[in-house]
Amino acid sequence: MLTTTIHVDLPQNAYQVAIAPGAIAQLGQHLTPLQLSPRLLLVSDENVFPHYGEVAVASLQAAGFAVATHIFPAGEPHKTLASIQQLYDTAHTHRLERRSTLLALGGGVVGDMTGFAAATWLRGVNFVQVPTTLLAMVDAAIGGKTGVNHPQGKNLIGAFYQPRAVIIDPQMLATLPRREFRAGMAEVIKYGVIWDADLFDQLAAASQLDRYDAVSPALLQTILSRSCQAKAAVVRQDEKEAGLRAILNYGHTVGHAVESLTHYKKFVHGEAVAIGMVAAGAIAQQLEFWTAKDNARQLDLIAKAQLPTQIPDNLRVADILTALQSDKKVQAGRVRFILPTAIGSVQITAQVPTDPLARVLVACGAAA
Amino acid sequence: MLTTTIHVDLPQNAYQVAIAPGAIAQLGQHLTPLQLSPRLLLVSDENVFPHYGEVAVASLQAAGFAVATHIFPAGEPHKTLASIQQLYDTAHTHRLERRSTLLALGGGVVGDMTGFAAATWLRGVNFVQVPTTLLAMVDAAIGGKTGVNHPQGKNLIGAFYQPRAVIIDPQMLATLPRREFRAGMAEVIKYGVIWDADLFDQLAAASQLDRYDAVSPALLQTILSRSCQAKAAVVRQDEKEAGLRAILNYGHTVGHAVESLTHYKKFVHGEAVAIGMVAAGAIAQQLEFWTAKDNARQLDLIAKAQLPTQIPDNLRVADILTALQSDKKVQAGRVRFILPTAIGSVQITAQVPTDPLARVLVACGAAA
Repeated sequence: MLTTTIHVDLPQNAYQVAIAPGAIAQLGQHLTPLQLSPRLLLVSDENVFPHYGEVAVASLQAAGFAVATHIFPAGEPHKTLASIQQLYDTAHTHRLERRSTLLALGGGVVGDMTGFAAATWLRGVNFVQVPTTLLAMVDAAIGGKTGVNHPQGKNLIGAFYQPRAVIIDPQMLATLPRREFRAGMAEVIKYGVIWDADLFDQLAAASQLDRYDAVSPALLQTILSRSCQAKAAVVRQDEKEAGLRAILNYGHTVGHAVESLTHYKKFVHGEAVAIGMVAAGAIAQQLEFWTAKDNARQLDLIAKAQLPTQIPDNLRVADILTALQSDKKVQAGRVRFILPTAIGSVQITAQVPTDPLARVLVACGAAA
Repeated sequence: MLTTTIHVDLPQNAYQVAIAPGAIAQLGQHLTPLQLSPRLLLVSDENVFPHYGEVAVASLQAAGFAVATHIFPAGEPHKTLASIQQLYDTAHTHRLERRSTLLALGGGVVGDMTGFAAATWLRGVNFVQVPTTLLAMVDAAIGGKTGVNHPQGKNLIGAFYQPRAVIIDPQMLATLPRREFRAGMAEVIKYGVIWDADLFDQLAAASQLDRYDAVSPALLQTILSRSCQAKAAVVRQDEKEAGLRAILNYGHTVGHAVESLTHYKKFVHGEAVAIGMVAAGAIAQQLEFWTAKDNARQLDLIAKAQLPTQIPDNLRVADILTALQSDKKVQAGRVRFILPTAIGSVQITAQVPTDPLARVLVACGAAA
């Protein structure tokens, strides 16, 4: 089986992302070159651990690790400081030392929480990511953002903390719910639009993108490695989100507003991003950032991945405009949009007048 | 009045320590060169804020800052994740942004907690330290260690996070309880023994060291600047405590054991460190690391600062030896001691046999 290695060369933290089909059964061997000390706490959740916990633990033990486990209940509502406190307790019970390792086996929630605990237990222990969702593989596991939710907002508490390694086994996507697979594909399409026109073309050439079974192992390997390369390239240039890294939020501006106004219930994150990309594409066309043809190509690809392309018609434009004002990218009261200029390239602009914006949102499905 | 500036040139975070009598009334001006964004949350405690809160806030406002305040109850028992959660709530209420600032006005507990919150709110906001105890001025405020206590141990939760600036006003020590002044002097003496023989000589030449009123402004300026220089030099070479930084734990090995066995009630931290330095000095003499004369000079200086020099006689040697095993510096079951080789220089060694160690502890006051 082919293995791809991506180097994330940050100034003070260099690490590798290994994309290797079947890697979960060789987890221990993958970690051997890092020369970690033996004590390791594997963190997972109640959805993932029954599928992959046993094989992961067996492989780690065979490689000489003294493995303990901590299993969170699954889901975003548990992404709290209270969950972190329980993880700290386990870390103490199992006598983790500064050179010990916290390993996250799960999706974005498990990865974000485990990373935050790794950043803050004993002022920092080793951290390894083994993402199990498509979204976590191409986005959350790379780049060092860790975090938990505050009652008043998502990821308000967190730290930049890089993993020592990211190990991706594409075959684990076989057990991922289809809706989650499609949601992850939204972020893959995002990389095609903002960074990698060749990835976009390969996605456009595929017959299906909406489920694991219908994507060939070779295309999946391409999707994962191109996406991770794009993320790594952006993060390498702007680790702490001073500038460029904001382009990774393409589709997230209107996407967050839609998520928030539907109370995080109607859409999973990737679906909201898909709607946000459709809106950003339409704004870009309206303002002549890119062509109608490029916009149509993006729309076709999002539709092929069976992702939503319309703002729900019970959302009012005025409410969306208000929600946009609380976007993290607002500076001096102006919303900054990430708009594509062609397939594979974007610009950041604060020059989107309210009037065409409102009309485009209506064209995308919002109530006037 | 003379101002001393010390440069802490870390690879990714360079900042300055300003030691300036009367600085508290010019706090705003001291921050102006940093070009911080206007929103600032001043964090203090119920002991310190009544003394210095008003003048600090007025100076910050005069410099254009939009100041909010968060006041902790005073003391180590409040150094918890629950206190941090309350601080997060205030940070949210006052709409802190990524470029906003958390300013710690207080001793080590306020500094450690504010630093941890600064490291983790929005994945990191600006952090400024205005230490108000001698201990915090010479130790806690420099070097980037932040932390809170876990029910099972002190500072188990934390992060390395450097301040943007440290501003020290020696005149604030006028209101520090005398016992706290002496306790801080223990760490000053530590720098003399481990790093700076000239500082040691100046301390040895002083007539009194046990209270603020009896130390001349010039000597106090020397004490603060030499101590901060020593700390900065060590941290510069070893920011994340991979090696050298361990020498800052001189006196802390037996000191922590004494603190722990007396349940953190009988001694404040600096007093326990004083006892630990006496013990380390005696071990060093026994093992011929340094001379009886150097050992006597250290003992005289500690006594002049009116610090304790004896292990309480109700502590048993066997219990101290057991407590030493849980020291953070234990590696592969061996306690590592920091032992002086002369005034101004130390070595780290794991070669301290139990037998002479036990005898020395008895000679220092412990029950056989």
